[in-house]
Amino acid sequence: MARLVLKFGGTSVANLERIRNVARHVKREVDAGHQVAVVVSAMSGETNKLVGLCREASLLHDAREYDAVVSSGEQVTSGLLAIVLQDMGVEARSWQGWQIPLKTDAQHGAARITDIDGSKLIERLEKGQVAVVAGFQGVAPDNRIATLGRGGSDTSAVALAAAIRADRCDIYTDVDGVYTTDPRIVSKARRLERIAFEEMLEMASLGAKVLQVRSVEMAMVHGVRTFVRSSFDDPDAPQLGAGGLPPGTLICDEDEIVEQQVVTGIAFAKDEAQISIRNVADKPGVASAVFGSLADANINVDMIVQNISPDGRTTDITFTVPESDYDRAFAVLRDKKDLIGYQAIEGARDVVKVSVIGIGMRSHAGIAARCFQGLAEKGINIRAITTSEIKISVLIDSAYTELAVRTLHSLYDLDG
Amino acid sequence: MARLVLKFGGTSVANLERIRNVARHVKREVDAGHQVAVVVSAMSGETNKLVGLCREASLLHDAREYDAVVSSGEQVTSGLLAIVLQDMGVEARSWQGWQIPLKTDAQHGAARITDIDGSKLIERLEKGQVAVVAGFQGVAPDNRIATLGRGGSDTSAVALAAAIRADRCDIYTDVDGVYTTDPRIVSKARRLERIAFEEMLEMASLGAKVLQVRSVEMAMVHGVRTFVRSSFDDPDAPQLGAGGLPPGTLICDEDEIVEQQVVTGIAFAKDEAQISIRNVADKPGVASAVFGSLADANINVDMIVQNISPDGRTTDITFTVPESDYDRAFAVLRDKKDLIGYQAIEGARDVVKVSVIGIGMRSHAGIAARCFQGLAEKGINIRAITTSEIKISVLIDSAYTELAVRTLHSLYDLDG
Repeated sequence: MARLVLKFGGTSVANLERIRNVARHVKREVDAGHQVAVVVSAMSGETNKLVGLCREASLLHDAREYDAVVSSGEQVTSGLLAIVLQDMGVEARSWQGWQIPLKTDAQHGAARITDIDGSKLIERLEKGQVAVVAGFQGVAPDNRIATLGRGGSDTSAVALAAAIRADRCDIYTDVDGVYTTDPRIVSKARRLERIAFEEMLEMASLGAKVLQVRSVEMAMVHGVRTFVRSSFDDPDAPQLGAGGLPPGTLICDEDEIVEQQVVTGIAFAKDEAQISIRNVADKPGVASAVFGSLADANINVDMIVQNISPDGRTTDITFTVPESDYDRAFAVLRDKKDLIGYQAIEGARDVVKVSVIGIGMRSHAGIAARCFQGLAEKGINIRAITTSEIKISVLIDSAYTELAVRTLHSLYDLDG
Repeated sequence: MARLVLKFGGTSVANLERIRNVARHVKREVDAGHQVAVVVSAMSGETNKLVGLCREASLLHDAREYDAVVSSGEQVTSGLLAIVLQDMGVEARSWQGWQIPLKTDAQHGAARITDIDGSKLIERLEKGQVAVVAGFQGVAPDNRIATLGRGGSDTSAVALAAAIRADRCDIYTDVDGVYTTDPRIVSKARRLERIAFEEMLEMASLGAKVLQVRSVEMAMVHGVRTFVRSSFDDPDAPQLGAGGLPPGTLICDEDEIVEQQVVTGIAFAKDEAQISIRNVADKPGVASAVFGSLADANINVDMIVQNISPDGRTTDITFTVPESDYDRAFAVLRDKKDLIGYQAIEGARDVVKVSVIGIGMRSHAGIAARCFQGLAEKGINIRAITTSEIKISVLIDSAYTELAVRTLHSLYDLDG
């Protein structure tokens, strides 16, 4: 017997036929003797419709009212799934955020979860009742409904799993797991049986869009074993695959990964642009002047590279911004030329960041060197490099994206 | 300065254009210096859509889940109206039933209001903030959403007006008030400036469908002055008509009605059927056997007539039931023939109950006699008669409906 949280997104609950399919997944787990809480999104299209009504009402709408309107979508799905489950003979009830309560901060429209009281849910789960929880919503300190912002239902599910001390949080999605890289680019990409939280965090933030970064962060902080699987699976098919789990990817603590690979995956982020500032003074406060100015203009900076000054007086700073902010970033830097003090700024639009990710590289030497050598052999020029403990990122011309990803995928023995 | 509750139904908030029109009505009252709470229904069509989804999920759905699903319609409207009001520069916020809280009993799907804590609303109203309240919903003792059943939003509005001690509850509807009778039948029907609670209760329960019976009962019990007016009025037109009010009908205590008429209106109820039980024993327990059996079968009985027994041994009982229950009522009575003990049962389908209503008849003699005489002069046969302090009802063949109503309307000087 295990305690499970299952999360289903909008396309999985788009109509009553699909909601019945979701109910069959739930019933299978209940029949297997598990305690089950389900987190549901709004029926696909509903949230957009409700957001559209708010915009039509006023372009500058009160976020608290927006939350009251938009959260109704998940409220409807939670009630309908509870009805369908009961109809199948599964005891179930719906829970709105304020009923649990799932408490958030006051940032209506993009709230963060501050506290979940799991006691009432646990009491019901232990009696065999399925809890159907409206995702994406909680209650703010003003006792009003708050929505959680992008990826909110994933975050609801993981946070709920932590609060009720679930053994696993199953994220049902339209892909069947996390791959070593994008299968559309590398046909030999393999589904990972397991991936460590830290690795998934790098994969998620670099563009593998299976799970929102916030929900992975939360899973890591609370140690919630999170299992990504396909909602299109036949609910009645045999469940056990390798490792005692059906097809999918388990995101877990690295201790749970027995056969640790050195490199787990190759990620890449398109739509980046590079900016380099030449000959800035190598003294305290310069980096702050550059990135403070960009932050004030609400421009997100990703990769930052600054080398040791060769002469001790001036240096170059290179960084990337979203391609859509490139012109604006240039304008900000020109404005602040006197404050920052530099000789020239230059940049490039068509760049891509390719990253090699793996917890194993902490204990293996030479991983970075192989990356640089492999790219050099294919004649791919590296514009900039940054590394962390478990990641090597290189900035290259975007024309070489596929070649670089395929080369690195083979190089680190990831091909299936 | 007055404290007002304004209630708008589904057609008044069917889309954002109409919601803006509602907001102009609200703004007009705010600009006049009034404190305003608004009660809104779901956008027309939404409730039916949500009810349809519940039925599609299961024909035997849990009423608590039904309430979670269906109440979302009012939640959406309340948020949208608050946004539109803010956009017009009117300070406003939405309130869900559980936020007020508006407490109900445990009868999910058809709950009754048990208590409304008006203190938080009053505090905001006194600061000049408009309260936009989701109608038709409250929170049950299990801390789950409960809907109020038919006419729920009217009842919400009147109950709320009582709780916040409002000076008046304005019901905006698709008619401009309460008429002396149905204008589709009597072209000379007049709009009443005022009508007493008791009279309105009789009018409402007899088929004048302006306000649901429950909301009128509640208005009477709590002394809530309730004003029926048209939502199609130009919100920017001058407001004051006769009696200091715009066109409409004020439902109020009889003391407020200066020029009391003897008869206020003529109501009629179609779709009734008559059943007579011949020669039942005139002894205790017989009426109970008849009406207990019908109640057990969930058949609503309306008019009941039993005369003094001529011989002290047997008597006849006549009553009406909804036409749709006629066959079932007959079957029940045949089943219970031994229990009840009667010689024969007979009945008629095509009957109508016509009622003359007026508080003034309490202090005027001869009102009933004029009614019977007037109908006799037109050759209309009276099948049965019942009277109360403020009402005379006659059962006649339905073919004479229009003739009877027009005759009585003229007879009591109601023609405009």
